[in-house]
Amino acid sequence: MPALARLCALARDAATLRSVHALLNWDQETYMPPAGAPARAEQQALIASLEHERRTSPELGDLIAACEADASIPADSPWAALVREMRRDYDLAVKLPASLVAEIAKTASESTEAWKAAKPRSDFDAFAPWLTRMIGLARQKAACYGHAPLGEPYDALLNEYEPGMTARQVEAIFTPLRARLSDLVARIAASPKPPSDAPLRVKIEPDRQHKFGLFVLESMGFDLKAGRLDTTTHPFCEGLAPGDTRLTTRYRESSFADALYGTLHEMGHGLYEQGLPKSGSLRTPDGETIPLAGTPLASAISLGIHESQSRLWENFVGRGRPFWEWALPHAKKFLGPALEPYAPDHLYKAANIVRPSFIRVEADEATYNLHIMLRFEIERALLRGSLEAKDVPATWNRLFKESFGLDVPDHARGCMQDIHWAFGLIGYFPTYTLGNLYAAQFWEALRAASPNLDEHLRTGNFAPLKSWLNTHIHAPGRRYRAGDLCQRVTGKPLSADPLLRHLEGKLGPIYQL
Amino acid sequence: MPALARLCALARDAATLRSVHALLNWDQETYMPPAGAPARAEQQALIASLEHERRTSPELGDLIAACEADASIPADSPWAALVREMRRDYDLAVKLPASLVAEIAKTASESTEAWKAAKPRSDFDAFAPWLTRMIGLARQKAACYGHAPLGEPYDALLNEYEPGMTARQVEAIFTPLRARLSDLVARIAASPKPPSDAPLRVKIEPDRQHKFGLFVLESMGFDLKAGRLDTTTHPFCEGLAPGDTRLTTRYRESSFADALYGTLHEMGHGLYEQGLPKSGSLRTPDGETIPLAGTPLASAISLGIHESQSRLWENFVGRGRPFWEWALPHAKKFLGPALEPYAPDHLYKAANIVRPSFIRVEADEATYNLHIMLRFEIERALLRGSLEAKDVPATWNRLFKESFGLDVPDHARGCMQDIHWAFGLIGYFPTYTLGNLYAAQFWEALRAASPNLDEHLRTGNFAPLKSWLNTHIHAPGRRYRAGDLCQRVTGKPLSADPLLRHLEGKLGPIYQL
Repeated sequence: MPALARLCALARDAATLRSVHALLNWDQETYMPPAGAPARAEQQALIASLEHERRTSPELGDLIAACEADASIPADSPWAALVREMRRDYDLAVKLPASLVAEIAKTASESTEAWKAAKPRSDFDAFAPWLTRMIGLARQKAACYGHAPLGEPYDALLNEYEPGMTARQVEAIFTPLRARLSDLVARIAASPKPPSDAPLRVKIEPDRQHKFGLFVLESMGFDLKAGRLDTTTHPFCEGLAPGDTRLTTRYRESSFADALYGTLHEMGHGLYEQGLPKSGSLRTPDGETIPLAGTPLASAISLGIHESQSRLWENFVGRGRPFWEWALPHAKKFLGPALEPYAPDHLYKAANIVRPSFIRVEADEATYNLHIMLRFEIERALLRGSLEAKDVPATWNRLFKESFGLDVPDHARGCMQDIHWAFGLIGYFPTYTLGNLYAAQFWEALRAASPNLDEHLRTGNFAPLKSWLNTHIHAPGRRYRAGDLCQRVTGKPLSADPLLRHLEGKLGPIYQL
Repeated sequence: MPALARLCALARDAATLRSVHALLNWDQETYMPPAGAPARAEQQALIASLEHERRTSPELGDLIAACEADASIPADSPWAALVREMRRDYDLAVKLPASLVAEIAKTASESTEAWKAAKPRSDFDAFAPWLTRMIGLARQKAACYGHAPLGEPYDALLNEYEPGMTARQVEAIFTPLRARLSDLVARIAASPKPPSDAPLRVKIEPDRQHKFGLFVLESMGFDLKAGRLDTTTHPFCEGLAPGDTRLTTRYRESSFADALYGTLHEMGHGLYEQGLPKSGSLRTPDGETIPLAGTPLASAISLGIHESQSRLWENFVGRGRPFWEWALPHAKKFLGPALEPYAPDHLYKAANIVRPSFIRVEADEATYNLHIMLRFEIERALLRGSLEAKDVPATWNRLFKESFGLDVPDHARGCMQDIHWAFGLIGYFPTYTLGNLYAAQFWEALRAASPNLDEHLRTGNFAPLKSWLNTHIHAPGRRYRAGDLCQRVTGKPLSADPLLRHLEGKLGPIYQL
């Protein structure tokens, strides 16, 4: 078999193991009975170690080297990009010993169970030993990856999620963003005429919310024959395998917008997964046609780009006036009479209320980024060793008071609210705000390219928007790095300006600033 | 590591892969979106081949041989049984080439999807090529296993499910059983006073049925923290992993007994899985304590014994008069007013109506075994090569007419009703009737040992029964072969007499024969 074809076959094999691991995780969050947790941890550790074996096999290294040396692969071709990305993944993977990979997988699974048990009781003491272990493992991982001479452990982990980005670069973007956002939030807080949140506080049974969520998903083009929507404590999207993309959300009777925006968010991720060319194939320079499933050309670029897709549907579509002009009549049908008194403008304004609050996943579009900055600061300090796990609650509560002016009432609404640290996702949070920034910049580009966009959205015609995203963002897979894609699609490097223009342009009129 | 400890570690590793494969299957039947099927087939094939690698590794063979030669393991100890059973599994596994194992797994997955699509349309032509492939693979498998000089291909497959049993032995039990059963069914058909099935034809919403099913499971001692109950086309139980036993059932509004007895049946399997010593451990002759999970000592003996547990709860408990004396007041609460007019005796009699019908899983306790005999005859002929897949419908319909006096109206209610052949479970059906026979014989033994059994059941005290089964049937795992267990527990070899005594003793008075 020619090297390129064999390389793709190995990638596909490793991706199949990854998809099995993803099912183990999905099932653990959705349907696994609690007593199954110890066995699940063993299953995860075993599959993770098998996947790691595949991703670090000497044969894979040899094939990558052979393809790099193959002059018949044009430098600007998708195949060159595939080899470049497989080199990146391989170099990262060989730096981690299999024993560490297995230990992280097993500990993450147990730690997640401990977090799930301790969170409802706000019992940080029960969770602290697990956090200590997960931070310790993250530092071990960072040490294995290494970082540039001027860098820090954080960079090594961030690079897993957002290739090439550093903590220093994140800080450079976050610092001015924080200043302008804080100013905007302060002016909003002083506004004498805040909108009413009454339309979002009506009571709606979870079952009705679920049916409405499915209707919205289908209307927007999410393929439910190739996907699902379930309920979990912490919503997520898992692009499990070709033809199998799973979303989760959660329902609260007295706050239907939580589930609705959560569903739109995960659907944005899901449309990206469904838009990647997982059932596509491509001819090699040798003239062989190779399926792309499991290769970098059918994979997401970075978490920041992934998040840009979720934010775009959640905030740029879902919190826009045209959305509510389309959605409200359907919402009234699906959700019952409680919404009858309201017009689209009421929902539009209510969905854009800015108000400091405790829970990140329920935060508004403006304060959300302040939640991220707080987490970034804490996990950076944990990795540097200047903060210990046991001191996280005190530090969290102090920083929260500074940023939001609020006293954290309990750890469930404080430092224990997110699954990320329990699961070992450390160095991951900044990608949420990077996603907001990418989304804003893409949104400006697609508005410029689609002058009738608002009219389409208002009439429930989501196909042109989805099609633009499919073509420009989804189809290339990892052909380009995030920064390059941004430059190609928007003509400019990433900047905080589009997001600030978007927020100020929308919130100014709503709050009569 | 001493050989015995290392042997158990390898068994555990293979069992972990099996549990992952089981989750892939469970998910495919319950929640997987349809477009995920091709990727699922690849996942299953990969995991199956990894499991097969483990089960056939030369290291495993060497360890088994080392333990067999180890004089410090007493011949009548559980450890000797463990080595004996691992030898059996190893010898079977090394006979199958990895490529055949992978092909069977992948084809079974695709064939199951084809069956699912074709069955509602009774489209046998669409399914026939898949049945041909699955039979071809089963014959290949039988050829790899081989059989005794006087045996036939069927024996090789039956031995997978019911170690040591042969088609000839099955025939020897089935022939007289068929004669006495046919006579009983004929006398029942001639009875002038059949009971009314009205109490089972009331309409009950599926959601109420589900809640009642969960109540019954909990009352009988099935641990829902270590298990689940979901909905599938074809109900099953999957003892997925330690602490994770999953049951499925299906609901029909106009026939709540289908789901209730289906749930009791799968619960019987589930109690066996939960009763196996999966979280137990045992000291080796070296003084080392080894966990039993994944070893033969924490596994089921045979499908016949497994089925005896499901039949015992479904038929011997659930279709008994004491059950309805306990259950009816609860059923009235959970299922609503439709059952108000009825007394326990009405339900007891209705649940024991004997009437030839098309669907095996809905058949009564007496005619059920006639369904099995028909399938046994057909698959035996398919494996011998005296019948081709394309001729299955005509043969099925002819044999069905002979046994039941009924014309099969369509293939969905005929030869396409079961998932087994689509999934490659060929040589499996006889174990259902063997299960009925074992159940009857165990039931006689436990009634002799527990004179107050009826009183316990009548008052909802299921603990003594469950405890007897835990001790005598579940706890030994595969320490004894099925025939030996039967002899130990009941003092006699397996015989058809207890089942016939049970059916004649119960149905005689109901039908006033």
